Amino acid sequence: MYGKNYLTLKTYSIGKILQTSFCRPHPILSQQCNLSNHHVTVKEENGTREITLKDEKTKNSLSLEMMKNLIEAINMDKNNISLRAIVLTAVGNVFSAGHNLKELQRSSGIENHKLIFNTATELMRSIIESPVPVIAKVNGFAAAAGCQLVATCDVIVCSDNSRFSTPGANFGIFCSTPGIALARSIPKSKAMYMLLTGEPISAREAYEYGLVTKVVSAEQLDTEINKIIENIKYKSRSVVALGKQFYYRQVDQSLLQAYKLGEEIMVNNINTNDGQEGIRSFVEKQKASWTHE
Amino acid sequence: MYGKNYLTLKTYSIGKILQTSFCRPHPILSQQCNLSNHHVTVKEENGTREITLKDEKTKNSLSLEMMKNLIEAINMDKNNISLRAIVLTAVGNVFSAGHNLKELQRSSGIENHKLIFNTATELMRSIIESPVPVIAKVNGFAAAAGCQLVATCDVIVCSDNSRFSTPGANFGIFCSTPGIALARSIPKSKAMYMLLTGEPISAREAYEYGLVTKVVSAEQLDTEINKIIENIKYKSRSVVALGKQFYYRQVDQSLLQAYKLGEEIMVNNINTNDGQEGIRSFVEKQKASWTHE
Amino acid sequence: MYGKNYLTLKTYSIGKILQTSFCRPHPILSQQCNLSNHHVTVKEENGTREITLKDEKTKNSLSLEMMKNLIEAINMDKNNISLRAIVLTAVGNVFSAGHNLKELQRSSGIENHKLIFNTATELMRSIIESPVPVIAKVNGFAAAAGCQLVATCDVIVCSDNSRFSTPGANFGIFCSTPGIALARSIPKSKAMYMLLTGEPISAREAYEYGLVTKVVSAEQLDTEINKIIENIKYKSRSVVALGKQFYYRQVDQSLLQAYKLGEEIMVNNINTNDGQEGIRSFVEKQKASWTHE
Repeated sequence: MYGKNYLTLKTYSIGKILQTSFCRPHPILSQQCNLSNHHVTVKEENGTREITLKDEKTKNSLSLEMMKNLIEAINMDKNNISLRAIVLTAVGNVFSAGHNLKELQRSSGIENHKLIFNTATELMRSIIESPVPVIAKVNGFAAAAGCQLVATCDVIVCSDNSRFSTPGANFGIFCSTPGIALARSIPKSKAMYMLLTGEPISAREAYEYGLVTKVVSAEQLDTEINKIIENIKYKSRSVVALGKQFYYRQVDQSLLQAYKLGEEIMVNNINTNDGQEGIRSFVEKQKASWTHE
Repeated sequence: MYGKNYLTLKTYSIGKILQTSFCRPHPILSQQCNLSNHHVTVKEENGTREITLKDEKTKNSLSLEMMKNLIEAINMDKNNISLRAIVLTAVGNVFSAGHNLKELQRSSGIENHKLIFNTATELMRSIIESPVPVIAKVNGFAAAAGCQLVATCDVIVCSDNSRFSTPGANFGIFCSTPGIALARSIPKSKAMYMLLTGEPISAREAYEYGLVTKVVSAEQLDTEINKIIENIKYKSRSVVALGKQFYYRQVDQSLLQAYKLGEEIMVNNINTNDGQEGIRSFVEKQKASWTHE
Repeated sequence: MYGKNYLTLKTYSIGKILQTSFCRPHPILSQQCNLSNHHVTVKEENGTREITLKDEKTKNSLSLEMMKNLIEAINMDKNNISLRAIVLTAVGNVFSAGHNLKELQRSSGIENHKLIFNTATELMRSIIESPVPVIAKVNGFAAAAGCQLVATCDVIVCSDNSRFSTPGANFGIFCSTPGIALARSIPKSKAMYMLLTGEPISAREAYEYGLVTKVVSAEQLDTEINKIIENIKYKSRSVVALGKQFYYRQVDQSLLQAYKLGEEIMVNNINTNDGQEGIRSFVEKQKASWTHE
């Protein structure tokens, strides 16, 4: 659809696209990005889209607006083959403090409450269903739904001063939905501790428990993330998309169901163009040339 | 039902309530605690009920009697809002050696065997369904169903000399039911090792594998447990109960089922009195005053 | 069926049984082992069958032939009560590089592709359904389906120079089926990292993540494995078989389903001959004498 060099640098502010001189007008994007608020900055360069939560005054709270902005930033133009990875990060020393409690007051009405939690699910789905890997780059505190957001990413890299907690019950709201992500990321004895006490765990503990993939110094965050992204870009986009989609499908199945479906997926995979190109490159000891489609 | 200061200290011996001078007669309890044997001591103080296995001569074996005593001790008066946490601990250097093998001899009859394992399930359910968190305080060896009992608690703190094993097959009985708890607490390669070899793992390994929440010195056990309990008591009882119940419900569901139900739970939670009180306390920067109901 | 001392040492080359002087002709085996190729060596001594992948020139690739050889080597005479444990190992510094990509070229045809992945599932099932524990002894690199093979074993011991990876997408084939085993062995944030980047993890990381049971020096591998096997042999074969089978059945069930089935299994277990013999040995403080049936 687009030539290789089409996208070199795009900087969006959701709802008000800041088109840099590197970025030609984009018919789809200008249609999609019409929100009036903008809690998120989007920068896309060489196939990596970095989405930054930038509502520091509310500690990057996941207000309804913020969640809509994030969903849009993750989903926009997602099938453009030039997009290869999404990095989710945040300004300030709080990655995200979770839902905006002001929006959960009775006065905002039960329909609004339903919309908020439905949108939160939609946000998690947009990460899981994104055809490209979503990598959390955490440099600070991720709490409650902020911790859930991080835990839902495919790969999570954090700085050694980062911390994670699910303290909702301190404010009368048990972190039930963050617990869904936690329960699928760390052992029960650790998840229940976090949920029942609200106490934070350190970056080191998050690594040991399995919540995060890697812990590095704040200075090394970009280097580590870039290494991961280079590895992803080396591969066929469509093959990565197929594999990611299958992963989240099979984890909810019994072992034998998973293998039954997995056999089909493998046969389909190897019979795609990029599947055969990869095998050819291996057999002929040449670099693969992917179509990514 | 009871005022805040009603319960300050209660000491029960199950089946024969030792009512201290701090404890007024309790109509429900005196009805409930009428077992003739007493393998368990119950002490309740400031909302924390400490249940102690005290059958050291059988290594705190989970005889039918012991299990019934434990179920009763966990369930009694469980909806009394003054009860905020349960600590499960044991006298001696064996937390529990598991089922009482003498009761599993053919001579005791298959109906008795069925009753024993049914009661064991009932014991695990009483922990999982307890509205208040159940914390294991382990200072010694927990084996077979004793290991299962520990693994089933919400939070597990052990001393650094504690050990855990599932050696049933050494005595002709594979730790199949303990394996249910293990499989949901630690990785497969570790669980199968424990089950197939019967070899114990150290406190440190139990921490690394995720079986236990924290490891401290024997001297620090109470301090660590008290910190956890203070964090629990800071919260609304009903909110903690709702969250705990949801956790165990959602772990058995697919991710999207879990989120669908989670949305409902969150909306219900924030629209309870304590949900709204918590949000108010946050927005107005005041201490919350819970109803716990 | 066979006396205790029947099998002391057997050396098979699958498809062409090398009967050593220690091994009398075996009617069933000579029927089963009639493959023309032989990518696997089988040595059986004192109840331990060691199966060695020995196709070093293809990096022990899991060609269709190799997989059939492995299935046969695992399944042959599997109900012979003298067989107590299976060790899966490999010659060379690559345990296995995974599927043989040459067989996945379009020219080999889609029916062949289906057969290959169906056989891979069959291989995993043969490990899971083996009545005796299958222990991986890894001293080198296990990649893609080779990593899946290792992860599927009941217990995994590796040398400290071993490494594990799922780099399939580098060759156009996402490690979707290896991901099924990984997702059930290590936390999501680690599994997705391996699958999306293709980067190897070290033996130490594999231990920390839960993929492997133990890491030792290459020199200590046999000693460590032998300790595990001695512990297994100390037990009743039938009790171990029953317990292993139940483990893999219950992990796919909800907690309460698992306990319901577990109660039945426990009652059945204690009422077998070896169940009662084990209890007797415990009560009478004597060594148990198993029938293994």
